[in-house]
Amino acid sequence: MSESEYILVTGGAGYIGSHTVIELVDNGYKPIIVDNLSNSSYDAVSRIEFIVDQHFPFFRIDLRDSSALTKIFEKYNISSVIHFAALKAVGESTKIPIDYYDNNINGTINLVKVMQKFNVKTIVFSSSATVYGDVTRFGDDRYIPIPEECPMDPTNPYGKTKYMIEQILKDVSNSDAGSDLKVAILRYFNPIGAHPSGLLGENPLGIPNNLLPYLAQVAIGKREKLSIFGNDYASHDGTPIRDYIHVIDLAKGHIAALNYLHKIGNSGLYREWNLGTGKGSTVFDVYLSFCKAVGRELPYEVVARRSGDVLDLTAKPDRANEELQWKAELGIDEACKDLWKWTTENPFGFQIDNYQWKEFSDDLNDRLHTFKIDNFKVGIINYGATIQNIQIGDQLLVCGFDNGSDYKSSSNPYFGANIGRFANRIKHGKFTLNGKKYQLSQNEGDKNCLHSGFNGFDKQNWYGPIVKFNDDKFKVDFKLIDKDGNDGFPGDLETILHYIIGYKFIEIEYESKLLNGESTIVNLTNHSYFNISNGDSIDDTEFELGTDQYLKVDDELIPTGEIASIGSAKFTLTSDKSFDNCFIVNENDDRIDTRSNELKQLVKASHKDSKITLIVSSTDPAFQLYSGDGINTDGFKKRSGFCVEPSRFLNAINQPNWSKQVILKKDETYGGKIKYEFK
Amino acid sequence: MSESEYILVTGGAGYIGSHTVIELVDNGYKPIIVDNLSNSSYDAVSRIEFIVDQHFPFFRIDLRDSSALTKIFEKYNISSVIHFAALKAVGESTKIPIDYYDNNINGTINLVKVMQKFNVKTIVFSSSATVYGDVTRFGDDRYIPIPEECPMDPTNPYGKTKYMIEQILKDVSNSDAGSDLKVAILRYFNPIGAHPSGLLGENPLGIPNNLLPYLAQVAIGKREKLSIFGNDYASHDGTPIRDYIHVIDLAKGHIAALNYLHKIGNSGLYREWNLGTGKGSTVFDVYLSFCKAVGRELPYEVVARRSGDVLDLTAKPDRANEELQWKAELGIDEACKDLWKWTTENPFGFQIDNYQWKEFSDDLNDRLHTFKIDNFKVGIINYGATIQNIQIGDQLLVCGFDNGSDYKSSSNPYFGANIGRFANRIKHGKFTLNGKKYQLSQNEGDKNCLHSGFNGFDKQNWYGPIVKFNDDKFKVDFKLIDKDGNDGFPGDLETILHYIIGYKFIEIEYESKLLNGESTIVNLTNHSYFNISNGDSIDDTEFELGTDQYLKVDDELIPTGEIASIGSAKFTLTSDKSFDNCFIVNENDDRIDTRSNELKQLVKASHKDSKITLIVSSTDPAFQLYSGDGINTDGFKKRSGFCVEPSRFLNAINQPNWSKQVILKKDETYGGKIKYEFK
Repeated sequence: MSESEYILVTGGAGYIGSHTVIELVDNGYKPIIVDNLSNSSYDAVSRIEFIVDQHFPFFRIDLRDSSALTKIFEKYNISSVIHFAALKAVGESTKIPIDYYDNNINGTINLVKVMQKFNVKTIVFSSSATVYGDVTRFGDDRYIPIPEECPMDPTNPYGKTKYMIEQILKDVSNSDAGSDLKVAILRYFNPIGAHPSGLLGENPLGIPNNLLPYLAQVAIGKREKLSIFGNDYASHDGTPIRDYIHVIDLAKGHIAALNYLHKIGNSGLYREWNLGTGKGSTVFDVYLSFCKAVGRELPYEVVARRSGDVLDLTAKPDRANEELQWKAELGIDEACKDLWKWTTENPFGFQIDNYQWKEFSDDLNDRLHTFKIDNFKVGIINYGATIQNIQIGDQLLVCGFDNGSDYKSSSNPYFGANIGRFANRIKHGKFTLNGKKYQLSQNEGDKNCLHSGFNGFDKQNWYGPIVKFNDDKFKVDFKLIDKDGNDGFPGDLETILHYIIGYKFIEIEYESKLLNGESTIVNLTNHSYFNISNGDSIDDTEFELGTDQYLKVDDELIPTGEIASIGSAKFTLTSDKSFDNCFIVNENDDRIDTRSNELKQLVKASHKDSKITLIVSSTDPAFQLYSGDGINTDGFKKRSGFCVEPSRFLNAINQPNWSKQVILKKDETYGGKIKYEFK
Repeated sequence: MSESEYILVTGGAGYIGSHTVIELVDNGYKPIIVDNLSNSSYDAVSRIEFIVDQHFPFFRIDLRDSSALTKIFEKYNISSVIHFAALKAVGESTKIPIDYYDNNINGTINLVKVMQKFNVKTIVFSSSATVYGDVTRFGDDRYIPIPEECPMDPTNPYGKTKYMIEQILKDVSNSDAGSDLKVAILRYFNPIGAHPSGLLGENPLGIPNNLLPYLAQVAIGKREKLSIFGNDYASHDGTPIRDYIHVIDLAKGHIAALNYLHKIGNSGLYREWNLGTGKGSTVFDVYLSFCKAVGRELPYEVVARRSGDVLDLTAKPDRANEELQWKAELGIDEACKDLWKWTTENPFGFQIDNYQWKEFSDDLNDRLHTFKIDNFKVGIINYGATIQNIQIGDQLLVCGFDNGSDYKSSSNPYFGANIGRFANRIKHGKFTLNGKKYQLSQNEGDKNCLHSGFNGFDKQNWYGPIVKFNDDKFKVDFKLIDKDGNDGFPGDLETILHYIIGYKFIEIEYESKLLNGESTIVNLTNHSYFNISNGDSIDDTEFELGTDQYLKVDDELIPTGEIASIGSAKFTLTSDKSFDNCFIVNENDDRIDTRSNELKQLVKASHKDSKITLIVSSTDPAFQLYSGDGINTDGFKKRSGFCVEPSRFLNAINQPNWSKQVILKKDETYGGKIKYEFK
């Protein structure tokens, strides 16, 4: 497959679609996701990106929207399509059949028409074992386990849409126009489980129809007990036998099918493959396995058989095993373990109370995420994982912009920014590491490298966030891969930023690892501008520092090496006083990971016109105090806010006795913590 | 069914649809036709209107166009839908399946959605016996003849679309929203034949797939010979057995189903009915029957069996017979007779070379029909069946307007109009018939009734035309029903106007019958304004009349009874001469139908500036010669043209010795002929 070719994944934000996108990326494919999100969440997409460390094209469109779909085919060189998009609730399909036929069939017909228009010849279709219907109808078990040859007789509108789409694709492939079309029909049995990361799984909406999602809700107390519909079947424990397949195995089946279609070259093909394990499990087997994963017995009750249920629906997966060289490898125990992890870490799936996001700077890769706890509100954007807003009631406590362009403007004085890969100044942007000299971008008057140059952490869209809520706190994770050579820094650096947002406090934890190379330099901080005066200016803010020691600097603002005292650590910031100094709280800690330190209070700030007090603490040995005299940007002027920037020593890399603070070697972890509290 | 309720007929311009619309009207239903004309012709609609003597709403839309369809449901109170619209060629469906699925299935889904939106609960669906597939697949004849219970297994995309639509409608009717939906599935066997009028039938496009249309084309020499696919089947003559049903019987089946659904009240229903005769005929039976209709043996050849063909596909129609009280009454002999009539009279269906029409005054009920023979061109509009244009090469020979509004304007001096029900003047609009006095509209200075009043034949849209071409002549029929009491005339009067257009001549034949009442008065003429001068004025046109005798008139322009001579019948129309006189060519013919007379030359006109000579002849006893001095309208002034208006004597109804000329009694026919020739 040539570099520029894409795989269009319809319904890629859904349960099976999202897992398949991950497998695609792992196998070197470039996915484009199309989803109308009618039954799924964009958060799934952003979690995929977090897992695979890349952004990819996403379009929120309905497949029935021909012109929107056509635009995508015009813009990208699409080689193949994996078609998941469909309504899929059996019960619902009997209530609103016309919506199922409209969405599933029209959507597919429209997709096929656009594919034909753009000469796209490869499609993997997400079908279902429901097309077989009740295979016991033959009066014997000649079709158990179920082979692909089993005659089809779906018994509900959902199943019929899958059946009809198979017929449509088959007829197209039989037509002249479709003679070189390659169609893989994948008939799923019972997909279960979730992504082992705990980041992805089936988004639980409404009352689950399926055994395991239901059990999961019993386990978290959302449902009272599991109903087992009949235990008088001819199985080892009397409950019906189904073929449960781990969603990861299922996703891998799609890659196998896609590879197979690519392998056979340009000749046409229409072929069906069962995706199942071939091993049947009873309802009770699954129940016990899930109880094991949860670690306790879950309440259940045996009730009457459900009409339409039959004893055994196990797949005969031989065809897929042989032709696609694909085999389900995971069992129900792994599935239950993964599902339980997903469930406990995301009890309500992607829905989290008091967390909302919206597009920022018209870009789904840069969203504004808002977190609320009572009257405490925090806003964070993907661009720089920047703190855009902190407020208590109506009182704004930091400087922030309302739109993306202001953040990208050169007049933005690093509002709320996370500074990396190296905070503060590096003399003339030069340093030596393992005897090798490096020249960084010199973005401060063509001399020093300030705050990492032109394309620092603060100027990139971070992956995520992964948002979770427990113990009354939001846990919000962002991730960034800073590329080797960016602004001159060596080595790919992965940084995970953990925000913990509780009532009236924000904790920031930085965690960076070198992905390649021997070593690099790291020094991270957050650059929020605080203003607790309840007015436009920070003048007359009262400060109480954790130290009076600071680094003297030369006229290039680079430390001379000399440490001095400012006199008193307690003062009022009158309009004639200003600061841009690096204070020292611990001369002797030169570890790259300071997180094991106690949080040390660096600054306590209050103001006569406000009841709110700010306390900044950190595990790092130093901090820059800056009184914001240089602010001159959209809506903000000089002294609109002040910064407390916990970090390593200023220009530490160029001072032999400090440099250990900032040199990250492979297999080590850079770490540091900052906490902002409001009292 | 309340007066204001309509039946929406999708695909109503098609073969079966058009015949069903006629049955609907005959059964007191009010149809609305929707058709995208992708595979049919509007001429079918205008022929239906000609047959049933009424206009009905027609919309050229595609069912997939939701907003267009919605507008129709908003505008009309639609009680039920009969759904024919579909692509239907089995062979084609295997070549372009996606178009079949898109058109047939999406169209239906969209229709159902709009029906649900407007709470329309009754639908009759045009399905097909193809849904059964090969009923011999069971290895025995348990399903021959084929009952509705026979399992379905369509073998081509066309059949699958019908099958899928059945499933969709079934699922909708099973859903809560569809619980009170009434669905009649009508499974057709082999529709054949045509409308006995010879006006409607299957429009032959491309190579026919079916036996009889193919035979018909062999009969008219369009195909060399019939191929009979195998004569070694186990039938009486070795050819396969099918169930051929006359399209008229089929159409009646729809009315029976509709009546049935209306009868069962508001309870929901989903039910399938076979529409077939129950009597199988072999290919050879049909061949022989058609040869009988044609009157000669048609060439055929027995070739190899066709794959997919089976011995016997005869319907078991018992369910329809019993439940719908419907039974096929016509046999293959009638069908062959009707098909042959349709074929001979319309060898190319609705397609006729050198005949075209387009909308006139933005109204499909008023179209401009253009006929060309070599350099001779004639235009006729439905409004008044008016002659809008006659030209030879570039020379225009009559006065006419380019748009409908000019014709409707009060300044239109009856350009090209057919005048009826009573041409010329009736004194004070009064007359007495069978001792009863009548007062007509007095539209000439509030005194005389001129050219029938305010709403004469010339101000109504005529049905038709039915256009045929043979012996180098167009035969063009229009029809008008002039209502009892219109402008004061008694009795409903049906008038059929036959135009015969040959090279450089037009013949007009009027034929009127009284539809009710004892008698009425009729006097018809055509009011074309000729100008053969090749210039703007008719001055200096040279006339040679067939008579010098004319009726003297009083100052109200009503004859005194005295007949006088103008001196010489040969004269040049100099600018100082003008005419508006009734000339007499036969004093003694007082028959109501003059068509048996020889055409008598009334006027020969020529002009020194033009090579073209006009000869007007007629079977009528008189004619009005008018030099157009009163013309004053859009683009035309005084003396732009002259009229020769063959007719009965001026005001004849009020002259005892003339009145027989114009009194039409029931069971009699008014008739007259006019001919315009150009030399």
